[in-house]
Amino acid sequence: MTNGFEQQGLIEPVARLMEEFSRLPGIGPKTASRLVFFLLRAPDEQAHALAEALANLKDNVRYCSRCFNITVSDPCLICSNESRDQARICVVEEPLDVLAIERTSAWRGVYHVLHGRIAPLEGMNREDIRFDELVDRVRSEQIDEVLLATNPNLEGEATSFHLHRALAPLGVKVTRLARGLPTGGDLEWADPSTLGSALDGRREL
Amino acid sequence: MTNGFEQQGLIEPVARLMEEFSRLPGIGPKTASRLVFFLLRAPDEQAHALAEALANLKDNVRYCSRCFNITVSDPCLICSNESRDQARICVVEEPLDVLAIERTSAWRGVYHVLHGRIAPLEGMNREDIRFDELVDRVRSEQIDEVLLATNPNLEGEATSFHLHRALAPLGVKVTRLARGLPTGGDLEWADPSTLGSALDGRREL
Repeated sequence: MTNGFEQQGLIEPVARLMEEFSRLPGIGPKTASRLVFFLLRAPDEQAHALAEALANLKDNVRYCSRCFNITVSDPCLICSNESRDQARICVVEEPLDVLAIERTSAWRGVYHVLHGRIAPLEGMNREDIRFDELVDRVRSEQIDEVLLATNPNLEGEATSFHLHRALAPLGVKVTRLARGLPTGGDLEWADPSTLGSALDGRREL
Repeated sequence: MTNGFEQQGLIEPVARLMEEFSRLPGIGPKTASRLVFFLLRAPDEQAHALAEALANLKDNVRYCSRCFNITVSDPCLICSNESRDQARICVVEEPLDVLAIERTSAWRGVYHVLHGRIAPLEGMNREDIRFDELVDRVRSEQIDEVLLATNPNLEGEATSFHLHRALAPLGVKVTRLARGLPTGGDLEWADPSTLGSALDGRREL
């Protein structure tokens, strides 16, 4: 195997690891080379621990068959937790979103991870995400509320719109996250859309 | 094993890989999490290829017993290349410096990699780098020139100073890289030390 790095006169093991690091998002050739030369100087066990953690990731992580969040055991710890409200589903795009919501400790229900959003221009349609699995789940389980927590951007909104249209006929309550000024935000710098949402959603004190 | 990431509610394989990524320079918790979730979505073979490249790095990279550059075979390709001038040694701090000089195609001699520089405040002394190995090499081989190409900063200068003092009694010609304005640089923005070097080293046209 030869690659661009090897052509620069790098020895094969170094060139190969640089190539692999460069395939990761946000890591360019300079960062890749810094990481490789850092690991060359570091104790052997560090490179090996990283190698094992990588192999372990793909070997031991699976998806919960109910909510499609990442998990080690199936069903996942949240789906099998009886103190969580199993009748309220928070729908998110990615597993990282579950983490963000869990950190708030403000949601006592369960989740459904779509693994993407509807974005026809990128070739992402309803059948490319866990869309129908959610509809099936709402149909077969006793669900009181579906909270649509997709990202507040164009694709996230479109995904929510399609989900709402598919879920409404099932008679389930569908909610979405509140819009408004972020905590610590500055009115002067708020974009018109955020400020508009904050005005629309004003509450009486 | 538990770590800070696992305490945040992350499953063990994810927490463990985030922890390992975070130990690399320039990679904080946010980047580590982005990398892990990228790899979760990527094909299995990508994480495994990276794991193998890591293991391969430490198992197959050694140091040339003559110049201490990284190599797969010993002596390295440069030390065993008969078309290189084996009587001229360019002394650098790190293997990456060799690559930088090789890219210029302006050096036809060989190298000596110190693996560090003298920096007493950081606990780096003459015996912590390949300093005496260079002196021994100059003493035992037929060497015409030693080019000191340490970094143009305080520690690099100090290292050069000590090397020069150790090599001078052996009667070998000791040179250093030219100082001056960098190509594409701007006189207006040059620091006084660089501009001073450029004035001192002025050449007749």
